[in-house]
Amino acid sequence: MKQILYFILSIIFIILLLDTSSAQQKVERWGRFEVLLKHTAPGNGFSDVNLSATFTGKDTSVVVSGFYDGGNVFKIRFMPQQIGTWNYTTSCNIPELDDKKGSFECIKTTGNNHGIVRVSETYNFKYADGMRYYPFGTTIYAWTHMAQGLQELTLKSLKNASFNKVRMCVLPKNYGLVLEEPELYPFEIKEVVKDEKGKEKKVWDFTRFNPAFFRHLEKRIDDLSQLGIESDLIIFHPYDNGRWGFDGMTNEVNIRYIKYLTARMASFRNIWWSMANEWDLVKQKTHDDWDLLTKTVVASDPYRHLCSIHGSTANYYEYWKPEFTHVSIQDEAPVLNPGAAAILRNVYYKPIIYDEVGYEGNLTSRWGRYSPEEMTYAVWMGVIAGTYVTHGESFMFKNEKDTIFWAKGGEF
Amino acid sequence: MKQILYFILSIIFIILLLDTSSAQQKVERWGRFEVLLKHTAPGNGFSDVNLSATFTGKDTSVVVSGFYDGGNVFKIRFMPQQIGTWNYTTSCNIPELDDKKGSFECIKTTGNNHGIVRVSETYNFKYADGMRYYPFGTTIYAWTHMAQGLQELTLKSLKNASFNKVRMCVLPKNYGLVLEEPELYPFEIKEVVKDEKGKEKKVWDFTRFNPAFFRHLEKRIDDLSQLGIESDLIIFHPYDNGRWGFDGMTNEVNIRYIKYLTARMASFRNIWWSMANEWDLVKQKTHDDWDLLTKTVVASDPYRHLCSIHGSTANYYEYWKPEFTHVSIQDEAPVLNPGAAAILRNVYYKPIIYDEVGYEGNLTSRWGRYSPEEMTYAVWMGVIAGTYVTHGESFMFKNEKDTIFWAKGGEF
Repeated sequence: MKQILYFILSIIFIILLLDTSSAQQKVERWGRFEVLLKHTAPGNGFSDVNLSATFTGKDTSVVVSGFYDGGNVFKIRFMPQQIGTWNYTTSCNIPELDDKKGSFECIKTTGNNHGIVRVSETYNFKYADGMRYYPFGTTIYAWTHMAQGLQELTLKSLKNASFNKVRMCVLPKNYGLVLEEPELYPFEIKEVVKDEKGKEKKVWDFTRFNPAFFRHLEKRIDDLSQLGIESDLIIFHPYDNGRWGFDGMTNEVNIRYIKYLTARMASFRNIWWSMANEWDLVKQKTHDDWDLLTKTVVASDPYRHLCSIHGSTANYYEYWKPEFTHVSIQDEAPVLNPGAAAILRNVYYKPIIYDEVGYEGNLTSRWGRYSPEEMTYAVWMGVIAGTYVTHGESFMFKNEKDTIFWAKGGEF
Repeated sequence: MKQILYFILSIIFIILLLDTSSAQQKVERWGRFEVLLKHTAPGNGFSDVNLSATFTGKDTSVVVSGFYDGGNVFKIRFMPQQIGTWNYTTSCNIPELDDKKGSFECIKTTGNNHGIVRVSETYNFKYADGMRYYPFGTTIYAWTHMAQGLQELTLKSLKNASFNKVRMCVLPKNYGLVLEEPELYPFEIKEVVKDEKGKEKKVWDFTRFNPAFFRHLEKRIDDLSQLGIESDLIIFHPYDNGRWGFDGMTNEVNIRYIKYLTARMASFRNIWWSMANEWDLVKQKTHDDWDLLTKTVVASDPYRHLCSIHGSTANYYEYWKPEFTHVSIQDEAPVLNPGAAAILRNVYYKPIIYDEVGYEGNLTSRWGRYSPEEMTYAVWMGVIAGTYVTHGESFMFKNEKDTIFWAKGGEF
């Protein structure tokens, strides 16, 4: 009788054990763990709540910022880089969100998860799991601001291509050939006014983000991750020209935007920070502004994702500054002939990516009319020099369904 | 009678006036004024006497270091950059050399004196008088260490050529094809010992300079000045390899050497400081050493002569550091094809001088066998890109009288 009792107790004990361990959430190494806290936001949930959490693993602690996701939901996201148990404790100026504790189990990677990409051996890249990463990128600057169907087509095209990096903008693009109005905006609309010409103009509440905008962007970055594609995410760009005003926000807003973006998305392993596309063409920002904003990104990113800044043709930033992990340049001169691309390796002692050398296409513009052979030649000139060259496609055919992949995506 | 008296007094007065004004020494703008003080040196005149002078002109004061020139003679040299009267007062830890006063008159330039060469419009150069200076240099690394007759021949050759800059080493050179023992050494010989192989080896007194060595160098730099040639003076180099040990001196000695060199020669308007030829091949010096020594040169030079550092092929220093007025590079890659030379302008925002792209010559070495056409092509590739390329000649003919101009000078 006693033996039967022991047996039953053992069974119960085992069931309990299995139960608690299955209750313990499991997250892949370089995957994403999310803490979700519900609380009726007092005032402005974006600006009035300072939420963070300390995650403690076997031998490291990491402090990450939380963010308000709208609808009285606060989130804290974390990318574990070590296998094992991680415990967390929240810290918040709102007592109900403070000192919340929990834990999760970080487990081995599966599938195409090779971890975050980092600089390796001065000039090259490796995934965190040690696998080499050779960037062969293309550009789809405004793809997440196009119609949903086009976005799906872009993903299908990328799935059938071999690119493993895309340059893409967080903010919508207003530029010749790319004039589509986006469905979502990063900020709440305060009001819609009419300018002197009677044209509608949105006035933003720069203290309130639009979580739907960022959730959509996150979904697309996860879609790319599924395809094994790194997202070289462009934080600022000059292609606005007063249409939305996102190129001319004050630094107070710029910094708030960076902190919100990094709190939401630094835990996405396939993100690189590109401070700007054509930084020097953003006329509202000074050189000191770029230094400040770059330092803000680096300080707000607990994982130290790859970070660089891209200028207009032959406008080089001071890539020797420690914030920049690699050199992201627009310049065709180094890839026009053999022997030149390597020069910049010797200057900077960092990986060199020629992130814009012109586009394979049939536009009349100087930048958009390489033949496929010329584009391949340019890429080859970089590769044989131990550097990397980003592809770009700017074919525009008469078919009305065609879009220019360069900025909109679609079909190659 | 009274009128005659007045007349005689006037004559005397005029004579006195003329006399005092002729007693007032006259020095051309960007010329050299020298204070000579005699005093029996107590102990070691090089290290035990701290002599300087403050020169005060119309609206500036400049403090310059003095130096011991041997034979109980102390000197202070000064290059005035403003026309007008300059007064000076010495300062010294030896009372007999302290608080000596005097003055001189700085007058307009004559002849080919256009002043010190400075950076102009970011990428270019001008003499201080506003005349453009386009550097077209050649190299005669060890010419001042060759036999006197050869040095005279070199000057004759330069007079008939059109080069306006030469790269030349302060210290003697021990290198394949350049093995001549110099007549003069920069330091006093303490003793001559024999090494294990019975070979004589000089032991230097690194606390005592050899003024004759420096006087000779100064004469040669003045000779070049007469020809309108800038002296790109190489302070350190790796071509010693234990023969004299000048590449492996301690930093205490290196700094003393820099201070002595600059005290003697910063007042020579046609000097540029080249911290090194092939800095990275000087195995005894760390990168931090080069930073320290460069800062020492800049701090010891009251006129801020042009200053750079030269590495072995494609070994670039951090030319963005403020000590470097321009970029002095050994690299042929930028001048092999059109379009590449300008890249470095965009990187550094300083004048770019490709100070070694290979040599026009008939040596078997890779670096010494350009045809004249190839050399001209390389120079042209630099010039059309808004940069500057230094020539070099390494023809070696069977005639025993021939020397390789590259390092020894002689005839082109």
